[in-house]
Amino acid sequence: MPSRSVSKQTLQRLPAFLHYLKSRPEGPSRYISATAIAEALGLNDVVVRKDLASVSSSGRPKVGYVREELIGELERFLGYDNTQDAILVGAGKLGKALLSYDVFPQYGLNILAGFDTDPRVAGTEAGGKKILPMEKLESLCRRMGVRIGIITVPGEQAQGVCDRLIASGVLAVWNFANVHLSVPQGVLVQNENMAVSLAILSNHLKERSGTTK
Amino acid sequence: MPSRSVSKQTLQRLPAFLHYLKSRPEGPSRYISATAIAEALGLNDVVVRKDLASVSSSGRPKVGYVREELIGELERFLGYDNTQDAILVGAGKLGKALLSYDVFPQYGLNILAGFDTDPRVAGTEAGGKKILPMEKLESLCRRMGVRIGIITVPGEQAQGVCDRLIASGVLAVWNFANVHLSVPQGVLVQNENMAVSLAILSNHLKERSGTTK
Repeated sequence: MPSRSVSKQTLQRLPAFLHYLKSRPEGPSRYISATAIAEALGLNDVVVRKDLASVSSSGRPKVGYVREELIGELERFLGYDNTQDAILVGAGKLGKALLSYDVFPQYGLNILAGFDTDPRVAGTEAGGKKILPMEKLESLCRRMGVRIGIITVPGEQAQGVCDRLIASGVLAVWNFANVHLSVPQGVLVQNENMAVSLAILSNHLKERSGTTK
Repeated sequence: MPSRSVSKQTLQRLPAFLHYLKSRPEGPSRYISATAIAEALGLNDVVVRKDLASVSSSGRPKVGYVREELIGELERFLGYDNTQDAILVGAGKLGKALLSYDVFPQYGLNILAGFDTDPRVAGTEAGGKKILPMEKLESLCRRMGVRIGIITVPGEQAQGVCDRLIASGVLAVWNFANVHLSVPQGVLVQNENMAVSLAILSNHLKERSGTTK
């Protein structure tokens, strides 16, 4: 039985393996090797072999993995086969785009509804999802057993929203606000920090252009 | 003169320092210490001290940094004071949301235009930005000296788009497509991978619930 606990680095590579396996044209062979995956994705094959061993025990020496089986094992491991309900707080531009983003169900995420403080926004819809007033947050989370909360409010409101989500039973927070969130032990915050990405891009350009400004 | 080359870990923390300094209510003191920043953000103060030393040489023992000066130094270091032009390829839901996202200029990113293959989309606008047909990609990039390309096309088109961007002079690619991109040395790819984030969230919930499914 493969271990259920893997490093964050492994977890970050697995979705790419899955995507590659699913997008690969059907070849004459049912099998796929760690080496082939490593080559296609430009990774070290020792790393790929180790990653796959942590999610699957079906690989065989010299033959590799049965492609269809490995796809199933990766999907189960990544939780993509097991849909999780989530709610989103902050129905601004980014929030509405996420509510309308129709690829999330493929990755096992089902956004039940959005919430917003603005009375002009609450009561409307985005992507077919209702946007509700904040007063309904706690009752909906409790009633539906929601475990994932998505935060797309302005930075200064994010901690308050985060506290309310956790008080309502949320265990995993997907944070698009550009601030650090304090959470009790056992709650995970996954930061989607565009400011960080932009700093990394900008820093690369600065190094390339050789300015020391 | 502080060193211009910092670790990715440092680069990932600096935007949070900047945000904290800017959002902090004006106190009686002009000064701010590394320890105070560390406490506010729940970080180790040795780490914060080291991070700040790599972007600023103005800190003084026992006094700390002049808040306004440190804000300026962080903004310069992160490139937020120095606007970079970018173009975006793929004006679907996510692409349009990014074109309309009005906080990018604060972080030094100016999206000049979007591009799309769909003739029903090319010719329209999003967030006041023109969406142009793909044929105009190369000429616009060259004419404006664009160095940043944002990819929001479906996975199977991403590598082709990436190749065209690089051939047009782009040096930094912000990749929202859920695939690995191969690029020549000297070009940076910053992946914004929502599938990875969802896998991390889902994995956390699985560990918490103790299922070994």
